[in-house]
Amino acid sequence: MDRNEVTQKIISAKVRNKLTWSDIAKKIGQSKEWTTAAMLGQMTLNLEQATVAKSLFSLTDEETAWLQIVPYKGSLPTAVPTDPLIYRWYEIVSVYGTTIKELIHEEFGDGIMSAIDFSMDIQRQADPKGDRVNVVLSGKFLPYKQY
Amino acid sequence: MDRNEVTQKIISAKVRNKLTWSDIAKKIGQSKEWTTAAMLGQMTLNLEQATVAKSLFSLTDEETAWLQIVPYKGSLPTAVPTDPLIYRWYEIVSVYGTTIKELIHEEFGDGIMSAIDFSMDIQRQADPKGDRVNVVLSGKFLPYKQY
Amino acid sequence: MDRNEVTQKIISAKVRNKLTWSDIAKKIGQSKEWTTAAMLGQMTLNLEQATVAKSLFSLTDEETAWLQIVPYKGSLPTAVPTDPLIYRWYEIVSVYGTTIKELIHEEFGDGIMSAIDFSMDIQRQADPKGDRVNVVLSGKFLPYKQY
Amino acid sequence: MDRNEVTQKIISAKVRNKLTWSDIAKKIGQSKEWTTAAMLGQMTLNLEQATVAKSLFSLTDEETAWLQIVPYKGSLPTAVPTDPLIYRWYEIVSVYGTTIKELIHEEFGDGIMSAIDFSMDIQRQADPKGDRVNVVLSGKFLPYKQY
Amino acid sequence: MDRNEVTQKIISAKVRNKLTWSDIAKKIGQSKEWTTAAMLGQMTLNLEQATVAKSLFSLTDEETAWLQIVPYKGSLPTAVPTDPLIYRWYEIVSVYGTTIKELIHEEFGDGIMSAIDFSMDIQRQADPKGDRVNVVLSGKFLPYKQY
Amino acid sequence: MDRNEVTQKIISAKVRNKLTWSDIAKKIGQSKEWTTAAMLGQMTLNLEQATVAKSLFSLTDEETAWLQIVPYKGSLPTAVPTDPLIYRWYEIVSVYGTTIKELIHEEFGDGIMSAIDFSMDIQRQADPKGDRVNVVLSGKFLPYKQY
Amino acid sequence: MDRNEVTQKIISAKVRNKLTWSDIAKKIGQSKEWTTAAMLGQMTLNLEQATVAKSLFSLTDEETAWLQIVPYKGSLPTAVPTDPLIYRWYEIVSVYGTTIKELIHEEFGDGIMSAIDFSMDIQRQADPKGDRVNVVLSGKFLPYKQY
Amino acid sequence: MDRNEVTQKIISAKVRNKLTWSDIAKKIGQSKEWTTAAMLGQMTLNLEQATVAKSLFSLTDEETAWLQIVPYKGSLPTAVPTDPLIYRWYEIVSVYGTTIKELIHEEFGDGIMSAIDFSMDIQRQADPKGDRVNVVLSGKFLPYKQY
Amino acid sequence: MDRNEVTQKIISAKVRNKLTWSDIAKKIGQSKEWTTAAMLGQMTLNLEQATVAKSLFSLTDEETAWLQIVPYKGSLPTAVPTDPLIYRWYEIVSVYGTTIKELIHEEFGDGIMSAIDFSMDIQRQADPKGDRVNVVLSGKFLPYKQY
Amino acid sequence: MDRNEVTQKIISAKVRNKLTWSDIAKKIGQSKEWTTAAMLGQMTLNLEQATVAKSLFSLTDEETAWLQIVPYKGSLPTAVPTDPLIYRWYEIVSVYGTTIKELIHEEFGDGIMSAIDFSMDIQRQADPKGDRVNVVLSGKFLPYKQY
Repeated sequence: MDRNEVTQKIISAKVRNKLTWSDIAKKIGQSKEWTTAAMLGQMTLNLEQATVAKSLFSLTDEETAWLQIVPYKGSLPTAVPTDPLIYRWYEIVSVYGTTIKELIHEEFGDGIMSAIDFSMDIQRQADPKGDRVNVVLSGKFLPYKQY
Repeated sequence: MDRNEVTQKIISAKVRNKLTWSDIAKKIGQSKEWTTAAMLGQMTLNLEQATVAKSLFSLTDEETAWLQIVPYKGSLPTAVPTDPLIYRWYEIVSVYGTTIKELIHEEFGDGIMSAIDFSMDIQRQADPKGDRVNVVLSGKFLPYKQY
Repeated sequence: MDRNEVTQKIISAKVRNKLTWSDIAKKIGQSKEWTTAAMLGQMTLNLEQATVAKSLFSLTDEETAWLQIVPYKGSLPTAVPTDPLIYRWYEIVSVYGTTIKELIHEEFGDGIMSAIDFSMDIQRQADPKGDRVNVVLSGKFLPYKQY
Repeated sequence: MDRNEVTQKIISAKVRNKLTWSDIAKKIGQSKEWTTAAMLGQMTLNLEQATVAKSLFSLTDEETAWLQIVPYKGSLPTAVPTDPLIYRWYEIVSVYGTTIKELIHEEFGDGIMSAIDFSMDIQRQADPKGDRVNVVLSGKFLPYKQY
Repeated sequence: MDRNEVTQKIISAKVRNKLTWSDIAKKIGQSKEWTTAAMLGQMTLNLEQATVAKSLFSLTDEETAWLQIVPYKGSLPTAVPTDPLIYRWYEIVSVYGTTIKELIHEEFGDGIMSAIDFSMDIQRQADPKGDRVNVVLSGKFLPYKQY
Repeated sequence: MDRNEVTQKIISAKVRNKLTWSDIAKKIGQSKEWTTAAMLGQMTLNLEQATVAKSLFSLTDEETAWLQIVPYKGSLPTAVPTDPLIYRWYEIVSVYGTTIKELIHEEFGDGIMSAIDFSMDIQRQADPKGDRVNVVLSGKFLPYKQY
Repeated sequence: MDRNEVTQKIISAKVRNKLTWSDIAKKIGQSKEWTTAAMLGQMTLNLEQATVAKSLFSLTDEETAWLQIVPYKGSLPTAVPTDPLIYRWYEIVSVYGTTIKELIHEEFGDGIMSAIDFSMDIQRQADPKGDRVNVVLSGKFLPYKQY
Repeated sequence: MDRNEVTQKIISAKVRNKLTWSDIAKKIGQSKEWTTAAMLGQMTLNLEQATVAKSLFSLTDEETAWLQIVPYKGSLPTAVPTDPLIYRWYEIVSVYGTTIKELIHEEFGDGIMSAIDFSMDIQRQADPKGDRVNVVLSGKFLPYKQY
Repeated sequence: MDRNEVTQKIISAKVRNKLTWSDIAKKIGQSKEWTTAAMLGQMTLNLEQATVAKSLFSLTDEETAWLQIVPYKGSLPTAVPTDPLIYRWYEIVSVYGTTIKELIHEEFGDGIMSAIDFSMDIQRQADPKGDRVNVVLSGKFLPYKQY
Repeated sequence: MDRNEVTQKIISAKVRNKLTWSDIAKKIGQSKEWTTAAMLGQMTLNLEQATVAKSLFSLTDEETAWLQIVPYKGSLPTAVPTDPLIYRWYEIVSVYGTTIKELIHEEFGDGIMSAIDFSMDIQRQADPKGDRVNVVLSGKFLPYKQY
């Protein structure tokens, strides 16, 4: 058994029982963004959260233990994603990557925007010309230091 | 001559003359995000904007004409970027890609968040534990249709 | 269980029962192009369509639920397709890609032809020198905007 | 000298002189699709066409000779194209490739749609919800034979 | 079930029953080259041929139906083949590819040698210095046309 | 200087002077297949042949010396060729590779068809339905030995 | 069933029964190098050898038949091997490849060292500074010929 | 300037002056294998050796200094080599890699054959059936240790 | 059965029984670094260690035998690792690789730092600004020799 | 001009003038590790440091300005490095990557060891069996947070 099998089982149970990620997040007690990532095998649950998941998805004891183990992360099957929705994000990195780099360096100097001390918020913005997906990414700036 | 040579010339002039992207953006009359992408060879300038750039970077007539041609986009030299700042964005797509997909589909149904009808805003958020980079991405939702 | 297994089951049932995609499309009530893509795991069915599919292919309740979930898209096993028929399309992109880009930009300016707000129609055109495959692709033009 | 250098020279001259592909096509005496592909180094010109190009782009005798040599085809720098407009076509192959395959085989049997005995027509279709790009691809069906 | 499973079953039966491809071809009633390709999952059988195969390899009705479906072609597990015999053919394409291109263009003009309207004949040629493998490849020349 | 530069110079001279490979081969005194491969940088010329080439293409002494050095072989810029004519050969290896392997092993046992002790002959075969390219490949069979 | 399964079964039996390759080779009656390669699915056994293997590893009749079929060769899971011992050999090819090429050409002219008419002998050489692995590779030189 | 340019200059001088690697090795005072690798940019020369090379190839002071700098090693342009002679060595690693691994482990236990404390000797072995290339590779065995 | 299956079984047992690597290492009697690598299928256990593992993880006799076989090493599923923690190490090699090379060569001359005669020690270093991971890597320097 | 050209110029000057990285570091006033990385184009210098470099390497004003621009990082030409010294580090990540991951998670929980808030110290450790390279890597632990 590995974490992927637990993830598959969770997704199957979600489809079968017609649950939403928002509902699951409320029961887990975290944001829908973190919770979905955790259920998809990218984050580590604590005992309490794993116990909620166990009950929600009818997991065994061993499956519940796996949720508390730090997973091998990376959720995509290919280096360049084929799914159109996910590819659009890859395209943003491809087209705007050097722009993002230039502007963060101009404001902060040499360093990076953390993808670990990081949060994400996805919201619908109503718009008469067609609703928009608004995503706020917030990451701590980490400077390179001299030594 | 191609657009890359013009981009290289613009970057060289910017370094030599110690300009900032924010200053350039004010002169071009657009956001710093769009302007930087345009100067890095990812967007198309109109005649007025190209004329400003011509003067700012001492471009020739042919170089100025190239700025008004739609470029072959994609700013990164490798499919998986090696630069740590840009890689963190690739990692966000890798780790959170399926999460983003699930949550947009849950809210909007099948479709994508456009990377064309799209804007980006990068801001510093002061934080006593270390300032944060906040990035707002806004893209129109485009639904798949049945036919 | 995942969508691929449902797709495999549908294809197996189609082969075994000697159904055609055109017949299936008529029962689903959409074009043969959209219906085939949906049955091959690239599109999302609504409840009514999934119920037709359930009956056509003897699916279980969970399999029917999977058809209503947005799938991870991308139908090919390799980045450069090995199948000769599909490769010819890849070759068209390889040989004519820059031509298509130039001509759409010349007519519309900077932007893309949408692959989401998109439809396709495949027809046989009789020809004494050998019948031809005629394919009409129709995609909304989406302009890049300045901001 | 090779064909790429001639292509670069033609594109540079086109940008500098603000020519359009449609105008060039009229002078060459072929469709805008074929002419653009030829000027971008994918097709072979005959003597008469090359002579027109020589005059239009101020080519030397050797450059004009290169236009009459069959080129090494393939116009894209990477196997998966990074340019958003061209990528959308790659995505169509990725998402709809198996659909196209199934429907052509259902109508014609085993074989391919030729990418050689092939023509393409790109047109603007006015639409109140946003104009559309309509592309008609026409390729001879070539059956696999038994022997 | 998919075609690969049928192919595996056919190969297993051939090994177990110590059949030769030549014998199988005689029973199928086609050349040994076409028949082997068909049995290895690259060609489509008609009803009569599939019925012979059914009997030869003890196939089920569904397996027999799969043989009459156009397969997803491409018989090799990697883009650059590792098997020494097959690699030698890849090497011929690598070393002599531009030579073949030049000589066909010199004789026929721009176009290709078809891999669809194509046949192959493999024969042993006795030679005192060591027997030779002689392979005749015959493909229709398809010219690029102007339009 | 390296062999590629000499190859480029030879091709440029051939285009400029409108020579054919057949003519060059007659002057070199070998088949058109071998001669073309040699001129394209895949084979090694002897002194006499190099002297003919020197005169035909106005080479310098050092360039003539390079023709007599064994080159680093491989004439294609990518592992999967993008040129349609050359790709068709790659497709033959992809689709028929396992067939070729099976039939050679059935006739000869374990071993390979040599790509070194090898010759190739390319001929036009007139055909009322469209002329054909006939290619005869002849390679010595080399058996694996036990030891 | 395919050859890989037979190979896996042989390796499992070897581990379980604590056999050595040298012992197996003695029973098969060939060198330890050839025998190991054969047992690992790279060489073809004759009937007598397969019968010994059948008894040694408790193979079924069909598994024994597979050993007499020419296998699809290539024993490594990735193009650049990850195992440190095997990587060192890949490194030798990477670092010394052009050296080997130059010296063989200097001695023999244009051609290759055969990997088919080839044998290998691996021996321990005692050395007070640490024992050494000595490997003798012997391959027939095959010259390129002109035609 | 970098080491590659020096390597190119050395090779050019060797071709122009019709030197052999054996002669160069004698003047450098090392084996032909080590010397060739060093001249091809894979090994580091000491002052005395570099001075001989300076004189042999008419190098400048800076070029001579580069020969004494440890180079970035790896002599091949692609991960899977295209040159037939070098490919045969890659094939040996591909086909026999697991065999070599098994036999070294059987004799020495876990560890590797060093590619650093390593030497190579390439010799012609006369053979009435065709001369053979014999290569002796000798590398120190380095055991993995427990700690 | 192969080593991967044993590794999976060990990891499953560790998760199920909530063991730590430190505890396991104490029972095996080696460092936590070596022991973890061994349990993850990268090192070879001796009989005594394998017997401890057999008891700890309830292994069968055959599984215990596999632990004493030298494994095919390499613990990552992709050439560029997707897991953020492991990627950071890959990034260190990417960003600092040439620095490490320069400084080791400056101190030791041409050669390598062994990854075989190698040990690693991972420790927590308390730090008021956030605890640090300190890793000491120690590898024997192996010089290239001339011959 | 770009940063790579400045890097090349610095390395050339270092070779020509026989400087050591340690000497350069003392003049720059930082550790030899940071300084070497900065000179190799991976770190950003401040005005004072750039002024020292300008004088040491005879840089122009524009070249000196480039040293103060944050570079596009990544110092290796291929994803899997070919240089033996650098490859050994890649091998450590490949073989021990999952071990490092497990042990850091066991000690710290889910998160990463920073490659930004990071330092490195490379030292020679005398050893009678052969001197060792000791490298201390120190990176801040950054925990994933729930939100």
